[in-house]
Amino acid sequence: MIKGITRCATAAMLLTMLSVVNAEPALANSANVDPLPSWNEGRTKSTIFDFVQETTTEGSKNFVQPQDRIATFDQDGTLWVEHPLYTQYLYILSKTNGIVQHNPSLAEHEPFKTILSGDMKKISELSNADIFRIAIMAQDGMSVEDYSADVVKWLETARDPRWNRPYTDLIYQPMLELMEYLRENGYKTYIVTGGGQDFVRTYSDRVYGIPPEQIAGTSFSTQFKYDKDGKAFLALQPSLFFNDDFGGKAEGIGLFIGKRPHFSAGNSTGDREMLEYTTSGDGARLGMLVFHDDAQREYAYGPAQGLPASNVGTFSQSLYDEATTKNWSIISMKNDWKTIFKFEQ
Amino acid sequence: MIKGITRCATAAMLLTMLSVVNAEPALANSANVDPLPSWNEGRTKSTIFDFVQETTTEGSKNFVQPQDRIATFDQDGTLWVEHPLYTQYLYILSKTNGIVQHNPSLAEHEPFKTILSGDMKKISELSNADIFRIAIMAQDGMSVEDYSADVVKWLETARDPRWNRPYTDLIYQPMLELMEYLRENGYKTYIVTGGGQDFVRTYSDRVYGIPPEQIAGTSFSTQFKYDKDGKAFLALQPSLFFNDDFGGKAEGIGLFIGKRPHFSAGNSTGDREMLEYTTSGDGARLGMLVFHDDAQREYAYGPAQGLPASNVGTFSQSLYDEATTKNWSIISMKNDWKTIFKFEQ
Repeated sequence: MIKGITRCATAAMLLTMLSVVNAEPALANSANVDPLPSWNEGRTKSTIFDFVQETTTEGSKNFVQPQDRIATFDQDGTLWVEHPLYTQYLYILSKTNGIVQHNPSLAEHEPFKTILSGDMKKISELSNADIFRIAIMAQDGMSVEDYSADVVKWLETARDPRWNRPYTDLIYQPMLELMEYLRENGYKTYIVTGGGQDFVRTYSDRVYGIPPEQIAGTSFSTQFKYDKDGKAFLALQPSLFFNDDFGGKAEGIGLFIGKRPHFSAGNSTGDREMLEYTTSGDGARLGMLVFHDDAQREYAYGPAQGLPASNVGTFSQSLYDEATTKNWSIISMKNDWKTIFKFEQ
Repeated sequence: MIKGITRCATAAMLLTMLSVVNAEPALANSANVDPLPSWNEGRTKSTIFDFVQETTTEGSKNFVQPQDRIATFDQDGTLWVEHPLYTQYLYILSKTNGIVQHNPSLAEHEPFKTILSGDMKKISELSNADIFRIAIMAQDGMSVEDYSADVVKWLETARDPRWNRPYTDLIYQPMLELMEYLRENGYKTYIVTGGGQDFVRTYSDRVYGIPPEQIAGTSFSTQFKYDKDGKAFLALQPSLFFNDDFGGKAEGIGLFIGKRPHFSAGNSTGDREMLEYTTSGDGARLGMLVFHDDAQREYAYGPAQGLPASNVGTFSQSLYDEATTKNWSIISMKNDWKTIFKFEQ
């Protein structure tokens, strides 16, 4: 009899273990726990639930086979803070002192003069070409592994001045919940970023639960080389290989995934083509745009809807209008998000 | 008591279900069923078992974390037959008649003259540039989706003349078992091919169990465009974007995966750098080369070890010597494989 009890207790334990492994899709109306607790109730949140239910319920007209459930997310301004400047640009700019120490005459020339001035507004107006130039000077010839190690080291000590926290703390909690919710429902989540692929790969798994191989981004060329011991490595080269922005985001999806996504989220004009590509497909497709309209809790910029214009993460009125016409969801940071960051909870 | 029995029966059922979900690594010496039944017993087979045991047994000096278990496979000549000519080249050449019908004067010019002659030896000596030229003429401006549909249609009817079978039947059964065995042990399998990424993606899931997003290959540029209804699509462009061969295979691994593999298999000089990159990493790494030394059951070509030289899938003596020096496994098709194709079983 004691043996019998033990066995039956084991059955209960196994049942618990099994329910974790074979968990039912965590749909809003069937689960006891809200999978999106940091989202306020309303149209945006229910649009997400409707989309997931429609695409994952067998027998539904717009059911999507598990292998075709692809969700793509822009990073800067969509998953984490991009103001006053993209985090990767801050990493690149942190190399300026070293470069100028090596070659002091550069201090009198642009873009070094502006960077060394520390004037963040002027720095945020530097061209991508200027930033790429610094990046190339800092990393040219470096192995991909050494570059990654250097990024990891920088991220450990660098702090955002407004929140005095590591940049990888400045992730939007509602978007983390959304990615997790999509994954629980069989979606494979990708980051499709105008930022550096190798940069994002250093923390994507830890921060977003997205492995390096699911990051499509902008990249420099690499070259296969041998070190002095004859060991093979990949050396970063001084040329842009792929620019994953605007039309390049859709092209990057073709290149890295080879499937048209059913879900895409972005926040700026650089994400327009990704959302157009996604929502031009058949069946249910959801495009979402994070709108930064919350100067108090984060930042407010447009120029859409009369918000201040910004070089970093421009959200134009024409993008806003297209979103409205095409039924893309505009996520109002102010109204749709109960919490912005995990550390606020 | 009846209730008790029922519960205990449920426990047994759950245990069975659970063992499927949390299956132990299917190692040769712990499993009842040989995971590599098409491989003859011997050094090559035991090298595979040793590598998997070493890298997947917790506590082992060379244990590899699940997320770092990356295995890359060349396709042509490694996973399927590449003689007398790469299957994708046959697909491209099938477009010649259409092109010449459209522009009859081309029939008098190379490479069309050689292709129309049907002389397979001469055709196999055409340059990649010649083949690319035909490919571009056939596919320029086509949407990626239309291209894929055309490949699928061709594969349905095209037959290899020697075996009178669809090309996708000419997959090496031992390699299918090896890929499956690695996957069962937590390895993520990728194809890293000099062939066309979009071509291989059309059948990779069905044939190899590898999803399209795990195919790294040679690609043409695409351009984001709108069709007449304003729907977004990707149009193939008349320029090579990425050449995934030789050093490009290692660079492609960096680009598409962002991790150094622990296992790579190839069969020709085009795979040398991929194996060098793989085996230059720390810990246990396994490089394997399929050696086509079985003219009776498949083909025999080198020029390594005195076999006839071949333009298609060249296996040079220097590659053979490097493999020996670096302890890469050379898979003798003749001696290591009990069965070549599934349909022979």
